Amino acid sequence: MADSGLVNHRPGTVAEHPRTGWYGRPVDGEIELIRRIAARVGTRGGLVTGIGDDAAVLADGTVLALDMLVEGVHVRRETHSWADIGHRALAVNLSDIAAMGAEPTAILVGLGIPDDVDASDIEALYDGMEALAEATGVAIAGGDVSTSPVLTLSVAIIGRMAPSTAPVLRSGARPGDVVVVTGPVGASVAGLMILEDPLVGTGVPERGDLIRAHLRPRPLLAEGRMLARAGASAMLDISDGLLIDAGRIADASGVRIAIDLDLVPRSPGVDRVAAAAGCEADILAATGGEDYQLLAALPPAAALTAAAAAVTVIGQVSAGRPGVSAYRAGRDVTPARLGWEHGSAERP
Amino acid sequence: MADSGLVNHRPGTVAEHPRTGWYGRPVDGEIELIRRIAARVGTRGGLVTGIGDDAAVLADGTVLALDMLVEGVHVRRETHSWADIGHRALAVNLSDIAAMGAEPTAILVGLGIPDDVDASDIEALYDGMEALAEATGVAIAGGDVSTSPVLTLSVAIIGRMAPSTAPVLRSGARPGDVVVVTGPVGASVAGLMILEDPLVGTGVPERGDLIRAHLRPRPLLAEGRMLARAGASAMLDISDGLLIDAGRIADASGVRIAIDLDLVPRSPGVDRVAAAAGCEADILAATGGEDYQLLAALPPAAALTAAAAAVTVIGQVSAGRPGVSAYRAGRDVTPARLGWEHGSAERP
Repeated sequence: MADSGLVNHRPGTVAEHPRTGWYGRPVDGEIELIRRIAARVGTRGGLVTGIGDDAAVLADGTVLALDMLVEGVHVRRETHSWADIGHRALAVNLSDIAAMGAEPTAILVGLGIPDDVDASDIEALYDGMEALAEATGVAIAGGDVSTSPVLTLSVAIIGRMAPSTAPVLRSGARPGDVVVVTGPVGASVAGLMILEDPLVGTGVPERGDLIRAHLRPRPLLAEGRMLARAGASAMLDISDGLLIDAGRIADASGVRIAIDLDLVPRSPGVDRVAAAAGCEADILAATGGEDYQLLAALPPAAALTAAAAAVTVIGQVSAGRPGVSAYRAGRDVTPARLGWEHGSAERP
Repeated sequence: MADSGLVNHRPGTVAEHPRTGWYGRPVDGEIELIRRIAARVGTRGGLVTGIGDDAAVLADGTVLALDMLVEGVHVRRETHSWADIGHRALAVNLSDIAAMGAEPTAILVGLGIPDDVDASDIEALYDGMEALAEATGVAIAGGDVSTSPVLTLSVAIIGRMAPSTAPVLRSGARPGDVVVVTGPVGASVAGLMILEDPLVGTGVPERGDLIRAHLRPRPLLAEGRMLARAGASAMLDISDGLLIDAGRIADASGVRIAIDLDLVPRSPGVDRVAAAAGCEADILAATGGEDYQLLAALPPAAALTAAAAAVTVIGQVSAGRPGVSAYRAGRDVTPARLGWEHGSAERP
């Protein structure tokens, strides 16, 4: 079984990461593949920002994103209800729009449906999606259905920047900026660990909240718009892990980012789950991913505005070799695995 | 094996339709499923036309569509090169935009990639897509890649109506309109039949053209815009079969459509393939699907304008029970199977 690099754990304590067990084997070198794809496509049609950011941006301020959700890779029917799957498929897309500081407008849904799925299951899936669509003002505008050997959802989303607001890319972080996060992390991975091994959740009062955080991630649209207005220089949503995603901002911006793990807020209950599983809570929370908190870089003055809206300063941008480092009590504790690398790490 | 209803053939002459053999089994009752889905989603976010047309339309003139392409259902690697698959995935989406009379702007691509696919295969796929994107001025703006047990492509496309042109829906056909098609049909199904059974292509000089028509469908963007400007009252692209798609206009518009098979242009070579396979050429061409010609209804005066641009009048819209009939030499020869019904017909 490949260690797909989601969580940096002490060898032997969390023998297999949950996702490597039932979440299938990710494709080899996703990032390298995207790089090769990007090298082959031209820029035209009023495209301002294409492959490589959370969403594409057109010259007229239209923001576009697409996410796929494949059963066995991103969800499993054993733990995710049909409504959970629908919610999640939409939530991750809305989160991409949030990470640009944009407002979502409409989505299209591509559904690949295996033989053993009933129409009532699909209705429940749409109910989960529609509830979140209604809450966020997004129209489910259409899509396509097809038979497929495996359940597949592709959600494409279109959004729009507010007038006189520029989309916030990953590439704008500058030396001197501070790094902020919109809220606590670690709940999703802790919930996932409980779903995989209920023992690690025994006696954890926040057990239900942690599982819910994993099954029903909340897109932070208002927070994204606030950070864009406040003058964020770079932003993304934490899908693969705070450290790996901070590294993506660092790489795209050509800067060094230092994250102080002592400042990274952790969701209630994460420390107990980490202890039960034998991992370091701060590393688990900073590499677990799927919390969909927003991570942004801002000039210090702008950060003060944003801080008033309850974001937390957790790091610093500096010149230097692009990349990310994690500090605990002033000591460099950067783990070898920064998050969920989609299989770009070693395979068996 | 289900007869999935692509071609109305004489029993025993084309024992299994090609697509029922290697194109997998379509999901039960796709149209009913879409109806059930549409009943569960709300309309908001400036949505003008949602589920049920070729593309969704937003109040600002944005047109959106998404198509899925699943290996074993829509393509097979045995007959489709990687570049063919890329071309086709984009072509069917561009065709949806053409059918609204709109101009395409950008696409997003969701790729589910099985283990046995190399990065060089994916590059070839993108080369096929990029060549068509460049020819049509569309930007490949981004997307998502994931591992998947089966090759899956979802292409979402965004387009825009030309100023002062309204999108052409399926629901606008009126009694007295004439029905036109932009060019000959039957080539794609004939090419498919040759790919499946090379014997039926023996001695057919257009063999290569027919196969190419199946593998490399051409989206008719200029024709779609011309028909919109000419005043088309209803339009769609022929994906599932001329008759079944005419029936969709009829149902959406609440009108009766009569198609005169003697007027429907057939691609060169189709008659010989039909003869070799023992089917009636006019029925084969009118039910085969995947030619991506545009089928439109227009007021007779508008049709004169359009006719100057080489569309062919093939039928008539009248009041009456919604539906479609096919005539040959004045006799009703409407087949039981009007086209490719995505499995809404009987199953084994």
